[in-house]
Amino acid sequence: MAESQTNFAWATLLEVEPGNGPRHVRLARALRAAIRDGRLAEGDAVPPSRTLAEELGCSRWVVTEAYSQLVAEGYLAAQVGSATRVAWTTDGAVAQRREARARSQPVRYDLAPGLPDLRAFPRRRWTETVRAAISEAVRHDLGLPDPAGHHALRQILSEYLKRSRAADLRAATVTVCAGITDGLVRVCRALRSTGITDLAVEDPGWSRLREAARSAGLRVHPVPVDADGLRVGELPSRGPVRATVVGAAHQFPTGTVLSPARRNELVRWARTVDGYVIEDDYDAEFRYDSRPVAVMQGMDPGRVFLLGSVSKTLSPALGLGWLIAPGAMSAAVRSANPVASAPPVLDQLALASFIDRGWYDRHLRAARRRFRVRRDLLVETLARRFPQGHIAGTAAGLHLLLHLPAGTDTASAVRFAAARGLRLMDLSAYQWKGHATSTLVIGYGNIADADIPAAVDLLRTAVELRPSRA
Amino acid sequence: MAESQTNFAWATLLEVEPGNGPRHVRLARALRAAIRDGRLAEGDAVPPSRTLAEELGCSRWVVTEAYSQLVAEGYLAAQVGSATRVAWTTDGAVAQRREARARSQPVRYDLAPGLPDLRAFPRRRWTETVRAAISEAVRHDLGLPDPAGHHALRQILSEYLKRSRAADLRAATVTVCAGITDGLVRVCRALRSTGITDLAVEDPGWSRLREAARSAGLRVHPVPVDADGLRVGELPSRGPVRATVVGAAHQFPTGTVLSPARRNELVRWARTVDGYVIEDDYDAEFRYDSRPVAVMQGMDPGRVFLLGSVSKTLSPALGLGWLIAPGAMSAAVRSANPVASAPPVLDQLALASFIDRGWYDRHLRAARRRFRVRRDLLVETLARRFPQGHIAGTAAGLHLLLHLPAGTDTASAVRFAAARGLRLMDLSAYQWKGHATSTLVIGYGNIADADIPAAVDLLRTAVELRPSRA
Repeated sequence: MAESQTNFAWATLLEVEPGNGPRHVRLARALRAAIRDGRLAEGDAVPPSRTLAEELGCSRWVVTEAYSQLVAEGYLAAQVGSATRVAWTTDGAVAQRREARARSQPVRYDLAPGLPDLRAFPRRRWTETVRAAISEAVRHDLGLPDPAGHHALRQILSEYLKRSRAADLRAATVTVCAGITDGLVRVCRALRSTGITDLAVEDPGWSRLREAARSAGLRVHPVPVDADGLRVGELPSRGPVRATVVGAAHQFPTGTVLSPARRNELVRWARTVDGYVIEDDYDAEFRYDSRPVAVMQGMDPGRVFLLGSVSKTLSPALGLGWLIAPGAMSAAVRSANPVASAPPVLDQLALASFIDRGWYDRHLRAARRRFRVRRDLLVETLARRFPQGHIAGTAAGLHLLLHLPAGTDTASAVRFAAARGLRLMDLSAYQWKGHATSTLVIGYGNIADADIPAAVDLLRTAVELRPSRA
Repeated sequence: MAESQTNFAWATLLEVEPGNGPRHVRLARALRAAIRDGRLAEGDAVPPSRTLAEELGCSRWVVTEAYSQLVAEGYLAAQVGSATRVAWTTDGAVAQRREARARSQPVRYDLAPGLPDLRAFPRRRWTETVRAAISEAVRHDLGLPDPAGHHALRQILSEYLKRSRAADLRAATVTVCAGITDGLVRVCRALRSTGITDLAVEDPGWSRLREAARSAGLRVHPVPVDADGLRVGELPSRGPVRATVVGAAHQFPTGTVLSPARRNELVRWARTVDGYVIEDDYDAEFRYDSRPVAVMQGMDPGRVFLLGSVSKTLSPALGLGWLIAPGAMSAAVRSANPVASAPPVLDQLALASFIDRGWYDRHLRAARRRFRVRRDLLVETLARRFPQGHIAGTAAGLHLLLHLPAGTDTASAVRFAAARGLRLMDLSAYQWKGHATSTLVIGYGNIADADIPAAVDLLRTAVELRPSRA
């Protein structure tokens, strides 16, 4: 489109239909259509709001409202001191370059799974516990750290996990680690040292767990997940696979809960193959429709390792997690990780104090209330904007799935959205073999309630603008 | 020795020689001799000071002074509300059990190498920087951390290492890690991924470095150290060894500095074998007789990795270190460590702020002054108490060597001392093959100046009481 529009040109170009809804909504629809069919190309300036308002014979508010909506949706980009311009292109190469650049940009709307609400990080209380930890640490605490973790935190975590997750710690040990990945590396190295060479993982599942197991020297085998969680019946009953990772309380990313029958079956499997279950208890603190599900670890503490962290409850920036190992495997966990170190002692002491003062429980209660409300709002907004979609995932954790009609190119939509500051994930990213899906993985941990409508609008634009895979 | 002594028995038993020096010194000598030749056995009570003073016809002060000296030396143990008893036994099994128990006891005198002065940890300033880090962190900082470290700390470390260590960062990258061991694991994995399978290490050297290299999948080969540092000429010029770890500024534990000729030779070696030098810059901030030696990394940033940390300057409880990698190896360091994480972000931001405010430099200056005085005091005390010994090690770092006459059973002395709350190390602990030596490794980072005389007295007792290996 050429520079310098006459008033006449804009009115023609935009084809604002009369009568159908509020004027700003009709104007936005006309602009959207012009961008999508190429009448407005990337980089084209739209007229100043005053000019267009005069041309169309409407108030300036109508124009600014329409522009704002399209900026939120990613069709337009506003820049201070410069014209508002079209921000979407049909040119693939240009789009790719921009998307790559955008991925390193600050995120406007974060619907990617995996983060808690960073706005709600308890800065004041965490500062207070760190201050107390530094002032109360005895000199010995500042010396060479115990690689298994500071005894005070191990003690407090034991009590917390018994109380809140029904863990059985009578014949099991707690080790402090940097998080679930770090914990899994340690467990896999321990398994390797006892002669276990092959590990089953959930498909789809968190790809970082696969990488962690491989980096510890294990071969990894996918086992599918259905509505009841891991398909335990597909675990081989003979051969080298003698351990499996499972998200029993809330599988990632499908959001399913491992059924009671499958739990029993899985423990029986571990006994039969003389092997182990590694329970990834990554976000089990958040269950909105009932009480949290107890850990599998309590069913057979001699066969089940448990991994947990504060990454989904406080922040991954704290780098604090734990692993529970069967008593008989504790020595192997230690000896197979001769140079593994615990997280910084002062942080460990701070977490011990944070839990001990009751602040962790209080934080979790507030977070649970917040996430329940937010999940309802997100479900409702998605249902309204994607009437053809289907929402799946237990009312738990920090994410859900949005299944869109078969053929929807969700992978492209995710890239498009990323280039406009909206982060979310396509299910294929978590599959063993990333075949095309039409399912989005949507996290709601780290988005403000007030941003949900605009984020979902932008998501709808991304889905609409990307041609289906056909 | 039987219970209930008559006055006569004690006077006979102790054989306090007349005339030779102050009375309390003579009494202490007599008690020492009685314990060493078995006339007084472990657990025997010595008489109350009043009783013994009457028996010997001296003032009570003479007796309490002698007892105090022997308690400091570990021959006697005083207990509140109970008799003072003999604390040393010739029974090996009993001694071993007690020594094992004592190793888990709080340390009274810490002369083990490897710790800075934990009394001088800047608690107030560190609290203030953590507080500032938490309050100033932007929301993004609380999200998923950059595995290479927070950009703010990487930037500040770059400037610090250029300025204080003469590092060359024009074609090299800084990664934040948990310390030197963690950094070495990452480097070794990167080397392994580029086809290097064998690593040379210094002998004697820090055993944890050997373990770290092995856990990363490398074979490890010892190369001896002499008064000029690593014997570079003994590095193989062909074959699989294409990398070596070196403590160039202050070798651990010998305390030697790699000579300028050897430095040049070592860089040439790396070029010849198309390999790498890994510089362990663990305590180079502390040099007392001249300015710190510049890092070798600056001689060839394409061939030299540099590892450093705050474990020897602030505290190992902080778990913060760095690694500098040649630009061409940076991608390998990243890809060979797919699940390695950086230390907690808030701690990284705190260190960035601590350096940026000038508090790290100020802390180092104060520590340097403190350690210089302490080293002088220790050298003087050792020279007086061990006139037959020879002190070695550059006036740098946080430890020195005490060579004792050939045949002295220093390993036993170390165990004896440990059972009495004095920690220090025998050189054999750091050797590739721990053959017997007569050399002690004595750290002075974490001992109060005022405790040095008593600690050295206890050390002399430990050396005297242990029969030579002969």
